[in-house]
Amino acid sequence: MSARIAILGATGAVGREMREQLLKRNFPLDADPILLASERSAGSTVLFDGRALTVQAVSKEAFAGVDIALFSAGATRSREWADVAVAAGAVVVDNSSAFRRDDDVPLVVSEVNPEAVALRPRGIIANPNCTTMVLMVAAKPLHDAFGLTSMVTTSFQAAGGAGQSGIDELMTQTALLGQDAERLRSHGQAAEQAAQASAHVFSKPLAMNVLAHCGSFTDARYTDEEWKLVFESRKILGLADLAVAPTCVRVPVVVGHSIATRMTFRSAVTRSQVLAALSRAPGLRVVDGIGGEEALAYPTPLAAAGEDDVFVGRIREDLDDPHSINLFVVGDNLLKGAALNTVQIAELLV
Amino acid sequence: MSARIAILGATGAVGREMREQLLKRNFPLDADPILLASERSAGSTVLFDGRALTVQAVSKEAFAGVDIALFSAGATRSREWADVAVAAGAVVVDNSSAFRRDDDVPLVVSEVNPEAVALRPRGIIANPNCTTMVLMVAAKPLHDAFGLTSMVTTSFQAAGGAGQSGIDELMTQTALLGQDAERLRSHGQAAEQAAQASAHVFSKPLAMNVLAHCGSFTDARYTDEEWKLVFESRKILGLADLAVAPTCVRVPVVVGHSIATRMTFRSAVTRSQVLAALSRAPGLRVVDGIGGEEALAYPTPLAAAGEDDVFVGRIREDLDDPHSINLFVVGDNLLKGAALNTVQIAELLV
Repeated sequence: MSARIAILGATGAVGREMREQLLKRNFPLDADPILLASERSAGSTVLFDGRALTVQAVSKEAFAGVDIALFSAGATRSREWADVAVAAGAVVVDNSSAFRRDDDVPLVVSEVNPEAVALRPRGIIANPNCTTMVLMVAAKPLHDAFGLTSMVTTSFQAAGGAGQSGIDELMTQTALLGQDAERLRSHGQAAEQAAQASAHVFSKPLAMNVLAHCGSFTDARYTDEEWKLVFESRKILGLADLAVAPTCVRVPVVVGHSIATRMTFRSAVTRSQVLAALSRAPGLRVVDGIGGEEALAYPTPLAAAGEDDVFVGRIREDLDDPHSINLFVVGDNLLKGAALNTVQIAELLV
Repeated sequence: MSARIAILGATGAVGREMREQLLKRNFPLDADPILLASERSAGSTVLFDGRALTVQAVSKEAFAGVDIALFSAGATRSREWADVAVAAGAVVVDNSSAFRRDDDVPLVVSEVNPEAVALRPRGIIANPNCTTMVLMVAAKPLHDAFGLTSMVTTSFQAAGGAGQSGIDELMTQTALLGQDAERLRSHGQAAEQAAQASAHVFSKPLAMNVLAHCGSFTDARYTDEEWKLVFESRKILGLADLAVAPTCVRVPVVVGHSIATRMTFRSAVTRSQVLAALSRAPGLRVVDGIGGEEALAYPTPLAAAGEDDVFVGRIREDLDDPHSINLFVVGDNLLKGAALNTVQIAELLV
């Protein structure tokens, strides 16, 4: 079956990757995708398979005849337009946080819970948060094998998680701050304050720095990004009681989220059992040749940028608890963390 | 009492900060410090209090009349020269890992276990690893109040933890990699491979990247840097059974180590109890105004660079375990993490 696709947020960082994924994966399009954006971007053209397509302003009429609408224009626009698109006959695959915690909206990672797309009473399927998504690709095979009970999780999130404007801000600040090591070393506070005027997307200057703050501060002094790791992990894995201790941190990386996690299971686990479970998991590549005489190999966010797979390494038995394992998981937040999974969900629908 | 000081490794990143700390803190010097280094650096001059002092090659004779010898020239040189300096009558305060696990060598953080300097059968006092040091300044008051039993700890370590050559490598790579966001986004693996020739101090390109590798891989696939967090935390706090799950990660920051940690205690803990314990701790500043209507405030490594204090923020009660708390701790790895604590130990000796 072929399908008519619309993309809302077609000109954003994730929207661009959605367009590329449709082509790269030979998605069965019945026509060129309908590219939608806000009034501000309407009228611009983008290349699609060598053809210049015009971006249209989103409207009720724009969804006529659309089978699947891929949304990546933020939660506010998703709330505004999802029911409109569904009423016009489309299934909405939404990359925002708007519907992820709605009991009537499945939250799907294509390798983890693909069966969940079938039950969608609102006509909407939600695409998980980028950090949670990357982590789930590694968590699922381990949960299936050993029974996950808790995770302590610290993220290293790329600027691109905040879209193209986040990438632009990091690059501008890198040019500003990346010159004078002496100043960064001896007068860091002054350097940070002087660069504060360049911080719009992030709350403080990100270049040559680390910000223990992603998203907005909400309940119990955790950020919404941290709460997403809690609630979305529970929903995707079907584990209402999963204990999660999340800390989400932004680092000066363009694209590629990394997650250091200690996972605890009902069963005792060994490294070789974990390796076996991870090695046969779909969408996951083990990069872990460290130690002894083996070659140095561990995943990095830079090497993961532009790659479809999620990577896992630094697989270590816990030093104290035989039921725990320590891992380092890395994935492209714009691809598996967003656009790729959205298109994979669309593939499950055709 | 005034003292004759020698610095071995006087021209390195930490050696430079030691010189500056001696002046800044008005250390009671009986004469200009004797500046020692390898043959390669001997004969060079450095400014000290406006005077040009000549760096001498280290030798047995160079320690004659020295009361306190501050060592920061790596473990190999410490093993070679510490007993020589002690035989010449000096107390050695050693910043390397050479003697930290020696039962006859106290391992001292000046705010945590200053009393330990008195018992030094070998005439040597060890200065802890920079990451452990920063963490201990926050861990000690919490341990005293609540009884620390375990920590899950993920570090974000600066290039400067590997000395001046680490800083230089980061800056060179930042100029190389910090220009072309498109390449970093879409062809990250190729960008990392192309920059690999610039990686000498670190195992992979660090700029615009995150490396889950600090130091050398040793037992059980943990790095020596990770083992230091285990053994040094136990020794400094006097907790032989402390459980530590360490993951040490290098980030593209010039100076300033950050540590995300979940600490678990014998007693149940609340945020207000933790705040009270941290607020009265020496050498520690709470930066935690996040949430609700309060101003946005959390510590960053850039703002900590050049500062004597350790900073703590993101203080959150655990979402599942009333005995656990989550924190983000930041400190200048060359100052409190190295040179400042070394000079503070010397102050305890005069």
